[in-house]
Amino acid sequence: MAKTSSPTETERCIESLIAVFQKHAGRDGDNCKLSKAEFLIFMNTELGAFTKNQKDPGVLDRMMKKLDLDCDGQLDFQEFLNLIGGLALACHDSFIKKCASSHK
Amino acid sequence: MAKTSSPTETERCIESLIAVFQKHAGRDGDNCKLSKAEFLIFMNTELGAFTKNQKDPGVLDRMMKKLDLDCDGQLDFQEFLNLIGGLALACHDSFIKKCASSHK
Repeated sequence: MAKTSSPTETERCIESLIAVFQKHAGRDGDNCKLSKAEFLIFMNTELGAFTKNQKDPGVLDRMMKKLDLDCDGQLDFQEFLNLIGGLALACHDSFIKKCASSHK
Repeated sequence: MAKTSSPTETERCIESLIAVFQKHAGRDGDNCKLSKAEFLIFMNTELGAFTKNQKDPGVLDRMMKKLDLDCDGQLDFQEFLNLIGGLALACHDSFIKKCASSHK
């Protein structure tokens, strides 16, 4: 039996992103697309801290429209990854700015 | 003191992606860019299973060129996220195909 090493941090992240997407997208039976309702549940559960921090109540609607590149009213996995990437980029940028200001 | 809930799976993934990037990008002192050498170490450690599976020895060079959108010979965090996104998309697609064929 080939020794299967435990997944690395990066492999675990990729697995988790697929699992989280499948869990939320599968609520209505089609586990390849996040409907608007599923997107709202995802944002209020998995990204509740971010969502509660938004002052403007229309922000989730605008995010959905911006992410829905093919305008089918749903988010496929690529469009979902763009959401995660955008948030990760914003977190990284603020992390870098904090590091820079703490070294002044 | 405000109750800080533990991070969700999605928040943990975003934190991990930033931490893994910072760890590998910071080897040469500049933790905002992955040099070619740092990219090769990342691919052979964090994504060793994927990398060892590639028959063509030139695949990492071509990946680096394709990912390096601004052609500065390094990968910034956005370019790194494109790598992770591409791999996650490929894993998701093969996951969906396996599900579809197992239901036939």
